[in-house]
Amino acid sequence: MTVPAEAPGALRPLQPADTGDAVVVVDQRWLPHELRHATLSSAQEVFAAIRDMVVRGAPLIGATAAFGLALQLRSDAGDAALEQGVRHLRGARPTAVNLAWALERMQRRLRPLPAAARAAAAWAEALAIAEEDVLVNHAIGRHGLPLLQAAAARRAGVVNVLTHCNAGALATCGWGTATAPIYLAHAAGLPLHVWVDETRPRNQGAALTAWELGRAGVPHTVVSDNAGGHLMRQGLVDLVLVGCDRVAANGDVCNKVGTYLKALAARDNGVPFHVAMPTSTLDRSLPDGGAIPVEQRSAREQTHVWGRDGEGRVVEVQVVPDGSVAANPAFDVTPARLVTSLITEHGLVAAEARALAALTEGRA
Amino acid sequence: MTVPAEAPGALRPLQPADTGDAVVVVDQRWLPHELRHATLSSAQEVFAAIRDMVVRGAPLIGATAAFGLALQLRSDAGDAALEQGVRHLRGARPTAVNLAWALERMQRRLRPLPAAARAAAAWAEALAIAEEDVLVNHAIGRHGLPLLQAAAARRAGVVNVLTHCNAGALATCGWGTATAPIYLAHAAGLPLHVWVDETRPRNQGAALTAWELGRAGVPHTVVSDNAGGHLMRQGLVDLVLVGCDRVAANGDVCNKVGTYLKALAARDNGVPFHVAMPTSTLDRSLPDGGAIPVEQRSAREQTHVWGRDGEGRVVEVQVVPDGSVAANPAFDVTPARLVTSLITEHGLVAAEARALAALTEGRA
Repeated sequence: MTVPAEAPGALRPLQPADTGDAVVVVDQRWLPHELRHATLSSAQEVFAAIRDMVVRGAPLIGATAAFGLALQLRSDAGDAALEQGVRHLRGARPTAVNLAWALERMQRRLRPLPAAARAAAAWAEALAIAEEDVLVNHAIGRHGLPLLQAAAARRAGVVNVLTHCNAGALATCGWGTATAPIYLAHAAGLPLHVWVDETRPRNQGAALTAWELGRAGVPHTVVSDNAGGHLMRQGLVDLVLVGCDRVAANGDVCNKVGTYLKALAARDNGVPFHVAMPTSTLDRSLPDGGAIPVEQRSAREQTHVWGRDGEGRVVEVQVVPDGSVAANPAFDVTPARLVTSLITEHGLVAAEARALAALTEGRA
Repeated sequence: MTVPAEAPGALRPLQPADTGDAVVVVDQRWLPHELRHATLSSAQEVFAAIRDMVVRGAPLIGATAAFGLALQLRSDAGDAALEQGVRHLRGARPTAVNLAWALERMQRRLRPLPAAARAAAAWAEALAIAEEDVLVNHAIGRHGLPLLQAAAARRAGVVNVLTHCNAGALATCGWGTATAPIYLAHAAGLPLHVWVDETRPRNQGAALTAWELGRAGVPHTVVSDNAGGHLMRQGLVDLVLVGCDRVAANGDVCNKVGTYLKALAARDNGVPFHVAMPTSTLDRSLPDGGAIPVEQRSAREQTHVWGRDGEGRVVEVQVVPDGSVAANPAFDVTPARLVTSLITEHGLVAAEARALAALTEGRA
């Protein structure tokens, strides 16, 4: 089937230059107030863009890192440069496994090649990773769509989905993971409405998910991260749909901090809790979520908030007293027992070791 | 025993003028950046101050409303004016029952009196409500202190408390409810540290709790509302201690939205979840929490954030895209089954109907 390269209304957050010497990305730090782009022409610039969250979202940082490695190999494609490039880029952020996954895939592809052939092959492989990501997300959308249709069939009226953070088109090379079923349902005319968690401290929900849903014309309402439990108790959430940054072999899900709280509320209220998971996000090397490294980001993301002031300027304001310290764990782990299903490009999978082992057998 | 009128380091958020014709309150909308005061000289000004959250916190709005009624009766203390004043002030905010409780207490005291005696009696009764609030909170502190001491005894090192919103000195006439045990423990030299939930959308944690803990020298760290579950999974929370706005006869607890999520995480991790509850916050007329009216506040509190910009100005910034709507349910209900104990001025009470009935028998 033909798959549109991007979800309706959403821009491509990553565009490789035809000249093969740069990638252009949406600088997501300025959204939703300004649509700015950044051109990344070196591995160092890619590293900084991932670390500083110019680009973010597990699948997108994987694809961007692949291009970063390809850019690196233009000047030196020897074995040492290849190893060093992989090691360097992998260190840009610790939690999302897609970063390591993409770089390892690049390495497997490139290592057997003569150095002279590596730069071109690396660019081609990075392109393949990006294009496959779009296809994978679209497949997640197709497999997730029946969940929304089933919710619509259960009762009259609009289907209410709650999502946390941004597992949208902006977190991927197109369609998004958690948003793909939403975009497909919306395109199919299914009446739905999305509760968008603000997602402090970086506000990826209020800034990114709301922005891309708005561009696509999907009805949505921004709520505080505190509100989801109340909404579920009021019967205002039919299902929770989130993305993930790393899933352990037993199905424990690491995702943006606060995901676990929504999973608990979903369980307490009998609301299905689904996690959109490209198989590239599965880390079979970790038996459970306890071993996933949780990134501790800068306290400034918690002590300050970015927004647009009354004069239209995008500024940072301090929200804590001088002298108060803050902590900023960026992820949490939702135990597999709270996950209704993982929506993968191959279909729905139970969040448990045997099902996940079967999923990847012969596919790695 | 002699009880200090206020917790160490905290200002009095409400000070009746000696002349009996006004109350001076801390305008909490400017904290933590500026310590401003507002003088309220009429029932209308008191109404607006409660509605606009110049003053907030269940016990404090009760006491402030009592003074508002006293101010109202200075010009007309007839039966109709008394009834109308009570009805009007009670409408300022819907959820916290202390508002109705204080006004009903005033009404019971004033109704039997001749009109000419009512204004002076009303002022005296409002003073009594405010003074008793300080004593009640101090008693809550004494009864809650052993919980912190027990946590300290269970293992070496600092006791970690997590709190949500501001149930502090600023929410009361002194000491706070949830903070009273903390202030007493700190004064007793017990090593403790408080995780302060930011508490979106109005940031009462980051703005108020952090501010008053800082003034009192209590070690604390501001975290996003999303972080608590992760902290508990990491073993970094010994107990959760929150306030409440209304407790139903069965022990269901209505408090700032997001409290329920923390209660779920506490239960999932075996962390005690305690609610500081002056008996004035118990609403025996409601069988359970489902009947508690949850205030829906302005969407602007969710779409915008107040803070101090780089030039030192306190400004409001927009954090959502133009065109995205927001919802702002201000409270949620935590089912009694998730509450370890209610800490009242009479001691610890189980969150269940029989214990709560026994608590108030003969005391109303």
